[in-house]
Amino acid sequence: MRVTLLTDFGTADGYAAAMKGVMASITPSVIIDDAAHDILPGDVRAAAWAVAAYWRRYPRGTVHVVVVDPGVGSGRRALALECDGRFLTGPDNGVFTRVLAEATAVCCVALENRAVMGDVVSSTFHGRDVFAPAAAHLARGFDFAALGPPVADPVCFTLPQPVLEEHGSARGEVVHVDRFGNLISNLPADLVAGAAVRIAGTPVPLVRTYADAAPGELLAVVGSRALLEVAVRDGSAAQRLGCGVGAAVTLRGPLA
Amino acid sequence: MRVTLLTDFGTADGYAAAMKGVMASITPSVIIDDAAHDILPGDVRAAAWAVAAYWRRYPRGTVHVVVVDPGVGSGRRALALECDGRFLTGPDNGVFTRVLAEATAVCCVALENRAVMGDVVSSTFHGRDVFAPAAAHLARGFDFAALGPPVADPVCFTLPQPVLEEHGSARGEVVHVDRFGNLISNLPADLVAGAAVRIAGTPVPLVRTYADAAPGELLAVVGSRALLEVAVRDGSAAQRLGCGVGAAVTLRGPLA
Amino acid sequence: MRVTLLTDFGTADGYAAAMKGVMASITPSVIIDDAAHDILPGDVRAAAWAVAAYWRRYPRGTVHVVVVDPGVGSGRRALALECDGRFLTGPDNGVFTRVLAEATAVCCVALENRAVMGDVVSSTFHGRDVFAPAAAHLARGFDFAALGPPVADPVCFTLPQPVLEEHGSARGEVVHVDRFGNLISNLPADLVAGAAVRIAGTPVPLVRTYADAAPGELLAVVGSRALLEVAVRDGSAAQRLGCGVGAAVTLRGPLA
Repeated sequence: MRVTLLTDFGTADGYAAAMKGVMASITPSVIIDDAAHDILPGDVRAAAWAVAAYWRRYPRGTVHVVVVDPGVGSGRRALALECDGRFLTGPDNGVFTRVLAEATAVCCVALENRAVMGDVVSSTFHGRDVFAPAAAHLARGFDFAALGPPVADPVCFTLPQPVLEEHGSARGEVVHVDRFGNLISNLPADLVAGAAVRIAGTPVPLVRTYADAAPGELLAVVGSRALLEVAVRDGSAAQRLGCGVGAAVTLRGPLA
Repeated sequence: MRVTLLTDFGTADGYAAAMKGVMASITPSVIIDDAAHDILPGDVRAAAWAVAAYWRRYPRGTVHVVVVDPGVGSGRRALALECDGRFLTGPDNGVFTRVLAEATAVCCVALENRAVMGDVVSSTFHGRDVFAPAAAHLARGFDFAALGPPVADPVCFTLPQPVLEEHGSARGEVVHVDRFGNLISNLPADLVAGAAVRIAGTPVPLVRTYADAAPGELLAVVGSRALLEVAVRDGSAAQRLGCGVGAAVTLRGPLA
Repeated sequence: MRVTLLTDFGTADGYAAAMKGVMASITPSVIIDDAAHDILPGDVRAAAWAVAAYWRRYPRGTVHVVVVDPGVGSGRRALALECDGRFLTGPDNGVFTRVLAEATAVCCVALENRAVMGDVVSSTFHGRDVFAPAAAHLARGFDFAALGPPVADPVCFTLPQPVLEEHGSARGEVVHVDRFGNLISNLPADLVAGAAVRIAGTPVPLVRTYADAAPGELLAVVGSRALLEVAVRDGSAAQRLGCGVGAAVTLRGPLA
């Protein structure tokens, strides 16, 4: 029985630990893995990116709790998902956009069954009062279908898609900047071979890994999520280029 | 067997991990939940606030280690507490002030039994050499009363109390600022209904949850600890108002 | 079965959680303790310092994963070590320098057996594809010797050694600055007794613990790793003195 926890709570206020305590009270032997608590407050897209890095690396039966929830207590639905055998709980605000885009088999319900919530449900902290207790009940075998009515239209934001052009050229954009300042694009590995890469107009040599560039040099590489990224060896491409999410990344194909 | 860990050590120096290793050596199957390691160095009040968020959310038998300990190695006592069935270890400097204010049944002893300490006790790191090993021994069933002599007067700082006035009015103050910049007061939920809220003189509309205000607007809400807090929808009230701990929060009662 | 995890990944990108998921898929009951994820990007020396704080505090059989790996995907070897009964996996770039200096019994192999790696090994994330899966296999009993061929010369950086002088005097230097701004030197406890301490030329009184100095005062103390450190009571010595790694620390012996 394993639950993972992603929030934008930080840890110093005790909010994340309160969620852990609630889960340990329901399922005393549960193992709780911290995924992240340092998502920028309210950054639903960053949460959606992060959970996509790990949700399917965990075995079937794992429960992933994802709480970046600026709309807590409003009319937004509370969701539980079963995606390719993993369970997820969190607000219906787009945090599951990338999981839903990747999953093959999806069931989605509105978390409404009071039997899996805390005795008191606050209007400001559903992480503690709804999503964590539901996750703990799922971890101990609670019937997914009994959590609430099916949801056919979970909220998803629009994922920017690369634009394919003639001769193997393509236009994409930066969709995430990581801790290293690597600028990760939406251009998939299979478009990249043999292409000439530019970011915000600047040409960047395509290499196999970071260490193939000299220290301090710009490089492009297919990263660990099989997407093209622009990096600086032992440095930050985001800082070097002054670029962030949305910056244009283009491939000029080998036949162009 | 579950232990939680709150410190002001950060993690990059390996201090928190050393505590975990000590516990795993004593009680190999122990599950260790990180509560927080990013308490501001030496901020005993912040630690007292944080542990109050989670200590009773965990089931009976849990051991909470709380180490914010600027007086390590001095004459300050080392404490172990049993509060409503949960155990706690940490320095006698006020970190347990809020737990002690909330608990119904309290036993408190001075941690003096060398049998539950490390072989060598340094003068600068009792987290590793005293509080963690004692916690691990408690987690595996060590007799609480055998830890040391009873303590009748654990150190507590003075918790600011709200001042009740006529006609349902009250004066309180900000007692904590969280990661979101929410200004949390000492005014309990039962005083709030129907009252007009001001912080540092500025009137703030009382709503049910954050999303009831427009983005960027100030609001007052009863938060997850049943205390009145002032927030900015999708923003930081602390930043907006330039307020922090100690700022005046007042309620003008419905009859005033 | 317990694994610890130290990286320079932060947590917000989901990289560390992906490593945890990989391990949980291989060894579902594994307990994963976060050691640190906030090592400065690429700071191999800081990683070497941190892991030395905890590797031997954990019981025999623990597996420590250490991934600060700017050379990922290059020719640098992947290592697995057995040191005094604990296992470690990580890149061959010096992160194990201090562990190797401390360990009595060491076996070291190059991680080459594809049976303990992910199905796909990326060129940019061996934490997920090599070091974590190998650790999980070790945790469930995989034969260490079958991981790959012996390595006789793991990469180690040169550890600065104190210079002993006549009459009990010695010259050392700052080798680590911790979260509190404490300046930790390479001068061991047994040289310190009775000596006069100077850092960057400034004399500092030697005391038994932080609280022996007045708030705001400089002090020298034998710290929790049995090394002389310079601190400021309730403050940061690094900030006060403008010193960092490499600053000279000297002892003038009692006989000088």
